[in-house]
Amino acid sequence: MKPLLTTGNDEEAVVDHGKTSSTIHTNFEKEELESHRAVYVGVHVPLGKQSRRRHRHRGHKHHRKRKDRESEREDGRESPAYDTPSQRVQFILGTEDDDEEHIPHDLFTELDELSFRSGQAYEWKETARWLKFEEDVEDGGERWSKPYVATLSLHSLFELRSCIINGTVMLDMRANTIEEIADNMVASEQLDESLREKVRDAVLKRHHHQNEKKLSNRIPLVRSFADIGKKHSDPHLSSELNEVDMNFMKKIPPGAEASNVLVGEVDFLERPIIAFIRLSPAVLLTGLTEVPVPTRFLFLLLGPFGKGGQYHEIGRSIATLMTDEIFHDVAYKAKDRNDLLSGIDEFLDQVTVLPPGEWDPTIRIEPPKCVPSQEKRKMPSMPNGSAPLSDIIKEEEHNAGPELQRTGRIFGGLVLDVKRKAPFYWSDVRDALSLQCLASILFLYCACMSPVITFGGLLGETTKNNIVTSLTGVAFSLFSGQPLTILGSTGPVLVFEKILFKFCSDYGLSYLSLRTSIGLWTAFLCIVLVATDASSLVCYITRFTEEAFAALICIIFIYEALEKLFQLGEMFPFSMHDNLDNLTFYTCQCSSPSNITEKMVQAWNQSGFNPETINWSDLDVPCFFFHPFFFKNCKNLHGEFVGPACGHNGPYIPDVLFWSVILFFTTFFLSSFLKQFKTKRYFPTKVRSSISDFAVFLTIMIMVLVDYLVGIPSPKLHVPDTFEPTSKNRGWLISPLGDNPTWTLFAAAIPALLCTILIFMDQQITAVIINRKEHKLKKGCGYHLDLLVVAVMLGVCSLMGLPWFVAATVLSISHVNSLKVESECSAPGEQPKFLGIREQRVTGLMIFVLMGLSVFMTSILKFIPMPVLYGVFLYMGVSSLKGIQFFDRIKLFGMPAKHQPDLIYLRYVPLWKVHIFTIVQLTCLVLLWVIKASAAAVVFPMMVLALVFVRKLLDFCFTKRELSWLDDLMPESKKKKEDDKKKKAKEVLLQDVN
Amino acid sequence: MKPLLTTGNDEEAVVDHGKTSSTIHTNFEKEELESHRAVYVGVHVPLGKQSRRRHRHRGHKHHRKRKDRESEREDGRESPAYDTPSQRVQFILGTEDDDEEHIPHDLFTELDELSFRSGQAYEWKETARWLKFEEDVEDGGERWSKPYVATLSLHSLFELRSCIINGTVMLDMRANTIEEIADNMVASEQLDESLREKVRDAVLKRHHHQNEKKLSNRIPLVRSFADIGKKHSDPHLSSELNEVDMNFMKKIPPGAEASNVLVGEVDFLERPIIAFIRLSPAVLLTGLTEVPVPTRFLFLLLGPFGKGGQYHEIGRSIATLMTDEIFHDVAYKAKDRNDLLSGIDEFLDQVTVLPPGEWDPTIRIEPPKCVPSQEKRKMPSMPNGSAPLSDIIKEEEHNAGPELQRTGRIFGGLVLDVKRKAPFYWSDVRDALSLQCLASILFLYCACMSPVITFGGLLGETTKNNIVTSLTGVAFSLFSGQPLTILGSTGPVLVFEKILFKFCSDYGLSYLSLRTSIGLWTAFLCIVLVATDASSLVCYITRFTEEAFAALICIIFIYEALEKLFQLGEMFPFSMHDNLDNLTFYTCQCSSPSNITEKMVQAWNQSGFNPETINWSDLDVPCFFFHPFFFKNCKNLHGEFVGPACGHNGPYIPDVLFWSVILFFTTFFLSSFLKQFKTKRYFPTKVRSSISDFAVFLTIMIMVLVDYLVGIPSPKLHVPDTFEPTSKNRGWLISPLGDNPTWTLFAAAIPALLCTILIFMDQQITAVIINRKEHKLKKGCGYHLDLLVVAVMLGVCSLMGLPWFVAATVLSISHVNSLKVESECSAPGEQPKFLGIREQRVTGLMIFVLMGLSVFMTSILKFIPMPVLYGVFLYMGVSSLKGIQFFDRIKLFGMPAKHQPDLIYLRYVPLWKVHIFTIVQLTCLVLLWVIKASAAAVVFPMMVLALVFVRKLLDFCFTKRELSWLDDLMPESKKKKEDDKKKKAKEVLLQDVN
Repeated sequence: MKPLLTTGNDEEAVVDHGKTSSTIHTNFEKEELESHRAVYVGVHVPLGKQSRRRHRHRGHKHHRKRKDRESEREDGRESPAYDTPSQRVQFILGTEDDDEEHIPHDLFTELDELSFRSGQAYEWKETARWLKFEEDVEDGGERWSKPYVATLSLHSLFELRSCIINGTVMLDMRANTIEEIADNMVASEQLDESLREKVRDAVLKRHHHQNEKKLSNRIPLVRSFADIGKKHSDPHLSSELNEVDMNFMKKIPPGAEASNVLVGEVDFLERPIIAFIRLSPAVLLTGLTEVPVPTRFLFLLLGPFGKGGQYHEIGRSIATLMTDEIFHDVAYKAKDRNDLLSGIDEFLDQVTVLPPGEWDPTIRIEPPKCVPSQEKRKMPSMPNGSAPLSDIIKEEEHNAGPELQRTGRIFGGLVLDVKRKAPFYWSDVRDALSLQCLASILFLYCACMSPVITFGGLLGETTKNNIVTSLTGVAFSLFSGQPLTILGSTGPVLVFEKILFKFCSDYGLSYLSLRTSIGLWTAFLCIVLVATDASSLVCYITRFTEEAFAALICIIFIYEALEKLFQLGEMFPFSMHDNLDNLTFYTCQCSSPSNITEKMVQAWNQSGFNPETINWSDLDVPCFFFHPFFFKNCKNLHGEFVGPACGHNGPYIPDVLFWSVILFFTTFFLSSFLKQFKTKRYFPTKVRSSISDFAVFLTIMIMVLVDYLVGIPSPKLHVPDTFEPTSKNRGWLISPLGDNPTWTLFAAAIPALLCTILIFMDQQITAVIINRKEHKLKKGCGYHLDLLVVAVMLGVCSLMGLPWFVAATVLSISHVNSLKVESECSAPGEQPKFLGIREQRVTGLMIFVLMGLSVFMTSILKFIPMPVLYGVFLYMGVSSLKGIQFFDRIKLFGMPAKHQPDLIYLRYVPLWKVHIFTIVQLTCLVLLWVIKASAAAVVFPMMVLALVFVRKLLDFCFTKRELSWLDDLMPESKKKKEDDKKKKAKEVLLQDVN
Repeated sequence: MKPLLTTGNDEEAVVDHGKTSSTIHTNFEKEELESHRAVYVGVHVPLGKQSRRRHRHRGHKHHRKRKDRESEREDGRESPAYDTPSQRVQFILGTEDDDEEHIPHDLFTELDELSFRSGQAYEWKETARWLKFEEDVEDGGERWSKPYVATLSLHSLFELRSCIINGTVMLDMRANTIEEIADNMVASEQLDESLREKVRDAVLKRHHHQNEKKLSNRIPLVRSFADIGKKHSDPHLSSELNEVDMNFMKKIPPGAEASNVLVGEVDFLERPIIAFIRLSPAVLLTGLTEVPVPTRFLFLLLGPFGKGGQYHEIGRSIATLMTDEIFHDVAYKAKDRNDLLSGIDEFLDQVTVLPPGEWDPTIRIEPPKCVPSQEKRKMPSMPNGSAPLSDIIKEEEHNAGPELQRTGRIFGGLVLDVKRKAPFYWSDVRDALSLQCLASILFLYCACMSPVITFGGLLGETTKNNIVTSLTGVAFSLFSGQPLTILGSTGPVLVFEKILFKFCSDYGLSYLSLRTSIGLWTAFLCIVLVATDASSLVCYITRFTEEAFAALICIIFIYEALEKLFQLGEMFPFSMHDNLDNLTFYTCQCSSPSNITEKMVQAWNQSGFNPETINWSDLDVPCFFFHPFFFKNCKNLHGEFVGPACGHNGPYIPDVLFWSVILFFTTFFLSSFLKQFKTKRYFPTKVRSSISDFAVFLTIMIMVLVDYLVGIPSPKLHVPDTFEPTSKNRGWLISPLGDNPTWTLFAAAIPALLCTILIFMDQQITAVIINRKEHKLKKGCGYHLDLLVVAVMLGVCSLMGLPWFVAATVLSISHVNSLKVESECSAPGEQPKFLGIREQRVTGLMIFVLMGLSVFMTSILKFIPMPVLYGVFLYMGVSSLKGIQFFDRIKLFGMPAKHQPDLIYLRYVPLWKVHIFTIVQLTCLVLLWVIKASAAAVVFPMMVLALVFVRKLLDFCFTKRELSWLDDLMPESKKKKEDDKKKKAKEVLLQDVN
């Protein structure tokens, strides 16, 4: 294949080399600006002429095949007429090329610069490189700069355009060595013989890459001086030594080719020489490129001395162009110089311009989180930057996927759930092979241990809770539709049980039996809900309901954590206003009670002690609640505490409270700090992300160690170590009737209805939160299946007299957050993207297996101080609040308008409307809280349901458009991007609407 | 004056209105792109022709007066030939215009858009505004966006250029009302009569501004419904009601004029109408502009329907151009259309371009911290972006100002210092009128109270320390050269005194007398140093020395704070591994000693007690150190403590230690948090900056309150409340001879020499840090004067047997930091700039006056817990570390290269050399620390001096260029900017050098 050589003179405006040299001058001072003018002129005249002359061809030729075009070209060497660069580019890219050599590859671009002066040593020196963003060699710093967005000057872009017009363009040159290329190139230039030799020499100079410097300078201390000496004496040795930066090599996609941009100043030229070369096939040219990839493109610019800065900018411009997705394709497919020019013009048409007075061009702009797709540039007839009008005011659909369509068949939804999830079962195990999952298991195991105690305290039976929590959880993890959900005894359900307990004791009914029958009814009703595909109603749970509910649960979590801390203050009273000088008199001894009551005498008789024979001052205090009754101590024997070190209910307990406070807050801050460690600058990425993953577990380990070393007897986690029901007076199973009258069996259906609503809402809202689009789950959801498993386990738990387990919101959110996966950084400067959640069943399974095994781990667990677990609680509550838009909106109340963040909904909804929306939501939250805490707690499940209706009412106060901004299930960030794209096009239509 | 009307047809390339309409099309789809091409063509052809034809004129006419130019113009209506837009612009701006109307004013630019469709209500709606940066009206959000850098598309800029070429340009139109303007404008257009009327109508439509909306929507809840009803029924009322946003009005500079950009779509036009109008004089057109400023410029673009987005972008482009410093001047001075076109071309030449594939053009870029001056664009013959070659490798001068020049006369420097500072004396008082100064006084008063105790403890005489510290400080504040320096007893000086004390007790000399004679010698030597202008040697103290010393002092501060906390652990022992059940047996009583020694018997006899008659169990413990000897307590009487609640030296003290730890860390974190409050989003700016200023004081108040409420007897600040020397056995003055042999009087000169070095280094390094260029001090420094005052006060203190006072580094840095002034935000989006320090004498004065008065404030001060003050210590130490580059460099050790911040020196100095520099500095620091702590502490002052020589040695290992990056006195940020400017030009030369 003969190289398709097109030099300047097949251009319509005939340009001779002597004249075009004026485009890049030797005289820097004033002629530089002249050249600039020349560029402006040079750029557009020929195109303009073409455009005018070929007007008649326009319009109907967009999708012609390359063949047609080529035939036309052969006819009269006239390229077809397309009016705009954009259309030309679309035509060039639209052709399907059979030729393998013109299929675009990924490109690595390298800019090498030469400083050539006679008598001085010289070499090509790598000064910048591009994979996607620009990285410069820091002048003197001998290091790579951070990747940044290449800010070019329009001036150099026009100069580059002029270079392409006036320089040599050699497409599909066949050459095997750099020498061959140099020969070909020199041959095509109109130069004196002596100059040819010199140019050839310059081109063939050795290339020096940044990574070679590392060898000689970066680690000089570990290399012998002899080595360094050797290197200096033999410059060729180091190029042999050339070690490729393997870290960087990893980032280069397989199959990538190189484009080498070579610009330089030499003292023998009076006008610049420019060549743009495409090799066919690509050739691996040893020593030319930093990394061993074959070279496809070569851009050479050699010019007279004194304009190095200008050449550098031109080099950066062509390199940035080569990095551009569209120009890159054009470069691969170009048939001649004009195609390249069209590519440049199309690029210019797409650039963003920053005005000089508002921006400092030397600021290196950090790569953005996300770059818009360039695909639209390939599509014809799209006005600059705007989307097709059709999807302009398309309302965002609700995320009601096929999972939530009503089937109309009994158990139809359930069957579909099973069908959908079954194929993922094996991958649910396989995908768990990651260190992150271990971290997640350890974190959530610790987190789950405390709710067992917190919420499990009500029934006074921590003993078998663990085992059954464990079994329930294991069953759920194995069979559920959404194994990312973590079950637990949730606050609302416990509130319900509390009310039931009070009711039973008021009316003399057997609590456990009634509870069992209610539980069985509830399980039945839930199964009915499953059968009727009731879960498809979930689509009415919008962000409004979701967030109000989630916020409530988070606040309960935070509240509980702080309440527990305050309770410690009661458990461990401390003495105020001590005079430290009097510490020698600081005692609190047990003594016989001053007023002996009937009850005391009874107690003494029961325990077999005689108040006279008791040696009161020998009695000790029971400091913990669960101390058995039959121990002989001051409190059990109703002794009185006397002394300056006595609180109102026993002796002051030194140090424990304050130490607990320290443990609590240190745990909270340390886990928050370690969690954020991922974004710190220290340590390699692997280490940082591991620390971040294991944040909570590490914190607990550290705090346990510190607590052990300090030795203050802080309250510890107590796990029962026997496997039997503690309350001796009942067996493993509980009868639904028991001592109660028979009618209770049927009457139980009424509270069961309430309970069903509660379970349904609690379970499904959590599931909706887990299944949010922003979590990018890939394995689908299983609302029906989940509810079935929960219903079955609810029946089992009821029969065993154990707490009911539903999806626990905060634990589930924490679980999902602990399993987030981000993309590894690809091209330098590209931001890691959130890829999704590590969806699998193993973490859930293992968490609950471990909980069951806790019985055998008491010797370890008893070292964990409770305040540490409360701190973890606080951390979970606070970190779960983070994603909730509702809280962002609450924060807006305190901010002056000008300081408010650029939230997407603030662009579209007036502030006062946003505030009203927030106030409504806040009112709902407060109402829920009040109801939960008040006597009316029994209607709590109804109120949660009422949220959905409140939301429905909002339809009357807000426009559909406003609600679509304030209340939907799309993640904030994604929307903003889409929004900005649509904005311009939208303006057109909205102005009509107004 | 007749309006200088230039329509399209005086253009060289004759363009008729019918044809030029193709530049903005009605058919959006494909012709838009055609128009774009046309723009490319249209832009450059005429200019290109001019350039070629007028080549002969070039070169020598840059500075001709406008007169010449006009005469030439009159000759043949031919504007003079300048080759590049840049040169043309320089010519346009270079003319001194006698005409007042052509003097540029500040501009406020407003973009109003119209949507006109027959049968629908319509009005001009303000959609964006510019003072310096762009602010948009958020579509639907009814609010202003954050100011951002206007990112334009090159496309619309070219379209705008085409508009100016083909539209009507009317310069210096005289009109008094908007109607008149509309009439003039319509008259100049070639339109049908019917269209004229319609266009006139459209132009005269009512203007609706964003701030008017606020009235109706933002505060609807406080306005009556009747009011709103009224407004809706009468649309004209709201324009009467038009309240100007006063907050925004304040930002508009006085004398500003308005430029109104009006773009709109109408249904009666088939081709766009464009007009650029300059009024002369500027006219206040009611209702047109948001703020009541006279309108100078009007840009009108009315076009057919369907291209609103395009028009909007063109509107943004012209508005951004009007905001550009240079184009703005051109617009004021332009004589014809070509001048405007040159302005646009020059602007295009200066823009920064962001490639489409690397940037999302919809991202709103926050205004940069600092925008480069545009002045260089006005200067001829400067290549794009580069500075003149002459200052390219100019070494940065050291900050040795005239203050540090040797005068050669005795006390010459001192005299100059006095002369320099005296004129500022009155302003030193006046400038203190600010709330910030009060905050500074309260902060530093609290901060100074603790060092009095920390370092003052050595001599065991806190009594009169306060008074004399106070007097010394007052004298220094009144007479010193740099009243921002805060005096205190510094660590190094105390180390010297400690050594002296040990020497004296070893050799049986009277410590106080020897100290007095040394002090007097030192004072004398210091005065000699003053007389000989020795302070001019300060210029050898570079950043290296400064930072090593400052780091040492900061670390001492942090170390002391933590050490104090640990000492609390010894003072308040707590019991570990308690069994809380046994608290009833938890006592620690005093009992008679088991082994009675000789010494004990003596003590008993002295105090007049008999071991037999002592009721041991009635004795209390003295918990604080300063308990007088003669009190009857367990420790004084050598009793033994017995019981489970006893530590090895007395009873365990409950709660105090942990409470102290809580106080300490809460103080540290709370003050750090409050200090950063300035950058938070809540509350108005005033409130935030006040909170930030008073951060430490507020923290102390809060902590005192909390401590009081909790009531734990934490250690408190004890201030002596008597005004007399406590040690009864000496008077107010101390003789330099005393009991010592006479030779000591003369021998004292030798240690005095050491002491002089120490005082000199300690004082002057601190002064150098305070006087750093980055603090932008305006009132000059006074090294000689400072040293004189210190010397005199040293003499006085020595005679009174009090600690010596020198500039305290950390206190002084804290003082300076608390007085930083930032500029108020001017144009929206402009970043506040650091203006300097509030230089005055009053804060220093008041701090020390308050310290003197502390004696009368014991009743308040005794509530301040010591741990809180230690927390303040820690805060001061840590916050003083912040500005130290040395620590940034230490942090680099832990970071992988790619995560390292873009520090300026890393661009120029290889990482390993940076590390070596850091290691040298770190070694010096460690050595200083070791010497300070070891027996060799006496050579400490010599070692500080040695730092200067170590730095000198570094000259052999590093190049001058590297050292200029690592070790100089320019602030980091400033340098980076200068650097970036010089970079391109530098490249040229550096390539030569290589």
